This record gives sequence, C-alpha cells and structure tokens, in this order.
Amino acid sequence: MCQLLGMNCNVPTDIVFSFTGFATRGGRTDVHNDGWGIAFFEGAGVRHFVDHEAAVASPIAELIKRCPIKSKNVIAHIRKATQGRVALENCHPFVRELWGRYWVFAHNGDLKNFAPELDGAFRPVGTTDSEWAFCYLLQELRRRFGDTPPQLAALGEALRELSGRIASYGTFNMMLSDGSALFAHCSTHLHYIVRQHPFATASLADEDLSVDFSRVTTPNDRVAIIVTAPLTDNETWTQFAQGEMKVFVEGAPV
Amino acid sequence: MCQLLGMNCNVPTDIVFSFTGFATRGGRTDVHNDGWGIAFFEGAGVRHFVDHEAAVASPIAELIKRCPIKSKNVIAHIRKATQGRVALENCHPFVRELWGRYWVFAHNGDLKNFAPELDGAFRPVGTTDSEWAFCYLLQELRRRFGDTPPQLAALGEALRELSGRIASYGTFNMMLSDGSALFAHCSTHLHYIVRQHPFATASLADEDLSVDFSRVTTPNDRVAIIVTAPLTDNETWTQFAQGEMKVFVEGAPV
Repeated sequence: MCQLLGMNCNVPTDIVFSFTGFATRGGRTDVHNDGWGIAFFEGAGVRHFVDHEAAVASPIAELIKRCPIKSKNVIAHIRKATQGRVALENCHPFVRELWGRYWVFAHNGDLKNFAPELDGAFRPVGTTDSEWAFCYLLQELRRRFGDTPPQLAALGEALRELSGRIASYGTFNMMLSDGSALFAHCSTHLHYIVRQHPFATASLADEDLSVDFSRVTTPNDRVAIIVTAPLTDNETWTQFAQGEMKVFVEGAPV
Repeated sequence: MCQLLGMNCNVPTDIVFSFTGFATRGGRTDVHNDGWGIAFFEGAGVRHFVDHEAAVASPIAELIKRCPIKSKNVIAHIRKATQGRVALENCHPFVRELWGRYWVFAHNGDLKNFAPELDGAFRPVGTTDSEWAFCYLLQELRRRFGDTPPQLAALGEALRELSGRIASYGTFNMMLSDGSALFAHCSTHLHYIVRQHPFATASLADEDLSVDFSRVTTPNDRVAIIVTAPLTDNETWTQFAQGEMKVFVEGAPV
C-alpha cells in the first residue's frame, strides 16, 4: 500500500511543511520506501518529480524541501510496491494530457483483476494497476464528453461514478487534478483539513516541526490538505466516508 | 531561437559534462535564458525537469550537475522565446505517451502559420508552435501505424517524411526519443560526435572544464552527443546537412 498527499489552494502556496512530514513516512517513520513522486501545477504547466529511491534518501526530495515551489494544486505519493516492480515507470503520480490540459493522478490501494479494455488513446507505460485505472478514467471521460471538457459538476459526477466502478475491484483511494480542481476518492482512508483565517500553529506528527501559519499567510488565503493519515497532531482532520468522493476548488470542498 | 542537446548511448551514462557546458549557454555565455528543460529515460520511465528560470540560475540544474543521473537517452533544451510566452507549459522538452511508451520532444526554430488540424488525441497544453508540431507528429504516427508500433526503419522513414513536411513551414531542428532510439532532424544547425574506445580528454568550449573519458568508461561504451553547436573545442564534430534526419541507436547513427 502507499500514501497520498494532495493540496488545493486559492493562491499559490508551498507544500514544504506538509511534504516534510509526509516524506518522513517514506522510509523513516513508516515503510513506504519503494519510490515516491510529486507533481505541482504551475499555470497550465506541471513540474513532475518521481524517484524510485525512498523519499527520505532522495536528493530531489531534499531540494523540494529547500526550494519552495508555489502551486494551487499538488499531488504527492510515497510507494510501498504491491503490483508492479520498483521502477521509475511505476512511480506515482502519473501525468497525461486530455482536452489540452495535463491531468495528474495518484492511487493508494490494490485492484484485483482490473483490466478493462483500453482503446489505445491512453495506454499504460508501466505495470501497475494504478496506471491502468488512470488510463481507463481518461479514456472514459473522453468517450463520454468527446472533445469538449464538461462543466465541473458533470465532470465530478462522471468521476464519482467511474471511481465507484473501479473501487468494486478492490481499494481505490485516489487523487486526480487538472490544475483547476482536485478530485479525491476514498475507499478506505483519506482525511482532509481546510486552513483559513484565523490561521494557527500546526505541529507535524512525524517530525519535530511546527509552523505558525498566521505569519506566512494573508487573511484571504485558503488551503485544503488531503492525506491518507493526518499529518499534524494538534489540528482536527475530517475523515472521508468509505466510497466518498470530494471535489476541492480554491482551497475548499464544493 | 533555442539550443538542443541530446545523448544516445549503449549503456546508461551521465550527461553532467555536456550539460554543464550546455547550461552555461542558458544565460551566461549565450542569451537562452527564457527557461530550460531536460528529460532522462530510465527504463520505460522518464525523469522530466522543466523550469522557466534561466538554466544558470536554476537550483534544479545545479542538482542535475551535482547528482549524476544515468540514462541511455536524454534530451535537453534551453529556450529563447520566439512564440509562446515565458511559462512552464511552454518549456521543452515535452513528454507524451503513444503505444504505451513515453515520447520526449524538443525543438529549435520557428514555424510560420503551422497549424494543421489535430484530431483531439494529442492537443497542445501551451502556446508554442513546437508543442503543436509534437502533437502533429504523434497524431500522424498513430494514424499511419494504428495501435501497433512499426519497426525502427519504417518509423524513421515516417518521421523523416513528417519532419520534412513540418520544416517547409520554417526552421525545424528537433530531437525526439521513445527511449530506444533518438531521432534528430536538422533544418539549419545540428552537430554530433560519437565517443568510443579509445576515449580521450574533452574540453568544454563554454566552461573551464575537461574530462578524461578513458578514466570513466569501459572499452565497450559508446556515446553519441547531438547538439546545436559543438560543446568542446578539441574534438571533431560532424555537422548535419540541411534537411537531414539521423536516427541514433546504442550510441551511433544507423
């Protein structure tokens, strides 16, 4: 199994604090040491980093902690291999293009005998059930909506239905973003928090690190953090229900 | 205009020496300071780094020089914007999937009124003529060969013909790789060198740096470096003819 971390904000925000706690689980406070990855939207573009080393040992992870990258939508993943060998092509998140936008996807869970036919427009490069599910999602979106992206409500409804269908094959905790919204589906474990004015101090559970967010924000900032297991031990996180999908836009669930 | 750097080898090799000279042109010894990017194949996976800062000022470029990444196929690019604003989504190289493989593409030149119809399977995210040309190339490959990738000879022939067609709209120096071969088309400026046994010392033209390759190679290694303008001043580079396309496999042109 793996762990997921997502961030959706109304202004470009760095994810250094959350990523620091999260990356610690990649080989130090937890067993997820078969690779990691993170993708940051920046305008229409994506910065994409993947590594098959453990996040705690990765110089790229160090760089991300040292050089804050600001983004409104971020998805990160630390991997404990279940299906697919430890290799770069099997590291999440995956990035593909649909409707002239990049889509970023990461998955935690295990799908059994999930191999729907793919029509060739989106084919997996690696050998994970996760990438197969991502290709299937994009293929079905294109099949359903053709060459024109739908409004957010219709998109969310389609993804909710498709995620439920995939989840019937096993565990499908996933995060997906096209740079404007972040879609999160929970089979078993996902939690989220919305940080907004008045901001307070947060303390990581996995590292001896605290941040007083009131000193690094403006009163208009709003940031949603979505994660497999809560990252801080002095804040109240909301647990997703099993089978629930949430859509985050501008730092809050809609 | 921009500059291109490619490497194709028979064993995974680091590109630190060549990239060091090349990156220096990204804002110090030359004017290409509107972003840069590099993509390394590693097995079927790709490590992809893009930045809209100048390569000489980029902490990611520093990391790449400090932490050698070994790869058999690398494509790098430094950008002087001609079409498309300075933004992450306009930084080369671009990465897309076709036939269950990643394809990496970078372009130097300027295409005038190049806007063939795209059928929706590959659409540009940014606003460059280059990404449009990449989408067109992949679309036409899929149209021609369907869901089954052809043999290398047929693929090379198709790319040669398509590149010639695109080059009729302006300047189309480009590099393309699917991780097994590196295709390079020259409209105006491209040079290459094949380094193999017996290896010698090479000295960068843009930096005070030399490497004795005989100390860091085995007698079986073979490395082709393809670049807009020669990187070293004590080796003999071969210039491409105008309109020429070369296919590099296992460190040599075929």
